[in-house]
Amino acid sequence: MEKIAVMGFGVVGSGVVELCDKNSASIRRRAGTDIEVKYILDLRDFPESSYAGMVIHDFETILNDPEISVVAEVMGGMEPAFTYSKRLLSAGKSVVTSNKELVAGKGAELLRLAKENNVNYLFEASVGGGIPIIRPLHMCLAANEISEIAGILNGTTNFILTKMIRESMPFSEALSLAQSLGYAERDPTADVEGADACRKICILASLVYGRHVYPQEVHTEGITRVSLCDVQYAEDWGGVIKLIGRARQLPDGRLFAMVSPAFISHESQLSSVDDVFNGILVRGDATGDVVFYGKGAGKLPTASAVVGDIIDCVKAEGTICSLCWADSAADTVCDWRQAPAVFYLCCRGRKAKAAASALFGELRFLHRAEAPEEECAFITPERTEAQLEEAKKQLEKEGVELCSAIRVLDY
Amino acid sequence: MEKIAVMGFGVVGSGVVELCDKNSASIRRRAGTDIEVKYILDLRDFPESSYAGMVIHDFETILNDPEISVVAEVMGGMEPAFTYSKRLLSAGKSVVTSNKELVAGKGAELLRLAKENNVNYLFEASVGGGIPIIRPLHMCLAANEISEIAGILNGTTNFILTKMIRESMPFSEALSLAQSLGYAERDPTADVEGADACRKICILASLVYGRHVYPQEVHTEGITRVSLCDVQYAEDWGGVIKLIGRARQLPDGRLFAMVSPAFISHESQLSSVDDVFNGILVRGDATGDVVFYGKGAGKLPTASAVVGDIIDCVKAEGTICSLCWADSAADTVCDWRQAPAVFYLCCRGRKAKAAASALFGELRFLHRAEAPEEECAFITPERTEAQLEEAKKQLEKEGVELCSAIRVLDY
Repeated sequence: MEKIAVMGFGVVGSGVVELCDKNSASIRRRAGTDIEVKYILDLRDFPESSYAGMVIHDFETILNDPEISVVAEVMGGMEPAFTYSKRLLSAGKSVVTSNKELVAGKGAELLRLAKENNVNYLFEASVGGGIPIIRPLHMCLAANEISEIAGILNGTTNFILTKMIRESMPFSEALSLAQSLGYAERDPTADVEGADACRKICILASLVYGRHVYPQEVHTEGITRVSLCDVQYAEDWGGVIKLIGRARQLPDGRLFAMVSPAFISHESQLSSVDDVFNGILVRGDATGDVVFYGKGAGKLPTASAVVGDIIDCVKAEGTICSLCWADSAADTVCDWRQAPAVFYLCCRGRKAKAAASALFGELRFLHRAEAPEEECAFITPERTEAQLEEAKKQLEKEGVELCSAIRVLDY
Repeated sequence: MEKIAVMGFGVVGSGVVELCDKNSASIRRRAGTDIEVKYILDLRDFPESSYAGMVIHDFETILNDPEISVVAEVMGGMEPAFTYSKRLLSAGKSVVTSNKELVAGKGAELLRLAKENNVNYLFEASVGGGIPIIRPLHMCLAANEISEIAGILNGTTNFILTKMIRESMPFSEALSLAQSLGYAERDPTADVEGADACRKICILASLVYGRHVYPQEVHTEGITRVSLCDVQYAEDWGGVIKLIGRARQLPDGRLFAMVSPAFISHESQLSSVDDVFNGILVRGDATGDVVFYGKGAGKLPTASAVVGDIIDCVKAEGTICSLCWADSAADTVCDWRQAPAVFYLCCRGRKAKAAASALFGELRFLHRAEAPEEECAFITPERTEAQLEEAKKQLEKEGVELCSAIRVLDY
């Protein structure tokens, strides 16, 4: 019998407690022992809950109870989650978490602490909700050099983009719908501006390349500027617009990472990842492309990943070292402006077409119904981001207004 | 330093040796030690190979070398692979394999032997080639009750079906093309008649439900009778034809398993799994649908799964018990004739439409260009397979010729 504590009785926390209850037989079979929730830490009381008797308010109770060897931190946010996690690990208790903000910001430190204390800090639930991705990445792909990883990592923005693509719903309306369905928060900034996807690609990149990639090092663009015109041009090009987080290792050993909307071909497995689903593509030298698909969020999918980690902690003897990564130097991530990219650009102006052709040479122009006469959309040849910035300025100088610029990817 | 042996220097075996060599740095990082191939067992010599010095012909050398603790069995076939694997496990050596025939036929026995000797028998490479599926299934989904598992498990047949769907290439021509490209063997029976997919769904079902499901218990239909007419009707219906292996647990605890061609809706993630790729859908009560996609065969993808298992053996202390399943009683798998199904039927005869309507009530009829006047295709209401057999006989009695019968699935 293994007793655990759950910190945070919100959506994910209540899912964890329910799953431990409901699927106790299969959990026992997998873990080799019973797993019982002893404490639920929350500021609130839950008198209506059938788990009311487990709710406590004092963190020290968990810290000082020698019966507790595994704790699920599903509070979210940096503090007090960071302090609590540090103290638990230092006290020799394993911690499993769904807290992507904390893992992306402090993962290297917490993983080091876990190792020093011969316990585990596991975070399967921090990326991809119920999709198994962290474990498959570090275990089954162990024999691969992973050249690249890219994914649709945020369900809220993917839902909004799907509505824009399938129903020609404007961004603001799709966002309101997402909010009314509970897919987006009242303040949707972290989702629509890409911060959430950024945290997740940081976690994946850190795990794959072994060095911490911090969110502030990753150039991040959200979907707030994606228009229905862009969606139409993407269709004409032969694909859809998705918010993609991606990372790869450069030949010099540095990492490239970015979050941005992107044109994705209909041929790609990522193009059919719709609604609130997530999809993560891993490009290995031996496996080729492997794609993981499923619900990226939600109470039970995320809780199932947390419980999977709890089971692993119970079964593990000591630290699972291959799940660790090192802290990073300042030059781990390369300057994104030096990376080459292919762009879709949409411009307006009497001289737009001529100016674009003068700048880029022969171009593939795109078409949409009801485009104003002076609008012109096209796919650029490959340029570095810095060169493209220059080109944009040049266009503006010629009196051409740049309406949109979206990267074209080849996953 | 861990020394291993590779039994079988064919496509997969040479891939394993190459990967251990080429990716040795990343393997060391993951395994925590160097992994070196000491022996390659094969009947042949390979004087041209740079690994010629490791080739041996006597199995006893491996068995009696105390330095060898892990052996990769990538010979394929039942014998001598079965005898070798038993003797190695009994001698306290872990075995990893890509041999789906052996795992599907003798998995329970070999897993028991591994457990008795506190070593491992791992088989990630036996299903889905380079797609991590065995580990994610048993680890990350540990907190789920898995209600159903279904997949496109055979790349050869999927390649043939893709050619039929995309290029209206007749079956026989697509098969010849697959053979000329090396995707299909000279004798393609095991692929096109479904035996290969059957072995793989047996392995997945055994792992998920904890009891051995034997291939001979699973009703299996191949793709040899799928026609271009069927492909056209599937398109009209709104989907494609895929060869699907699937298994689920019935409320009474028994298992249902089957391999057959099936109509799959364009809405399904499985519908876009094309060419030689595989896709496996796992339906969990907490996660919802999770899909794994990638190359299901080939030298390096499969080898990468084998090497991943080797690393796990090196890291594991004792048997990884959750990867085991029990042997099964005679009534583990239910009679497939009692299972309900929805069918697409295509019939010909003057009275076809009237007879079908009389039998099934109101029907959804399908259309295709250039259909003969007396041809009639439709989707049946749900019936048990036994009821459907009766209905087919009834149609024949009425002088209606049944051209095709393909199940319609809702993954």
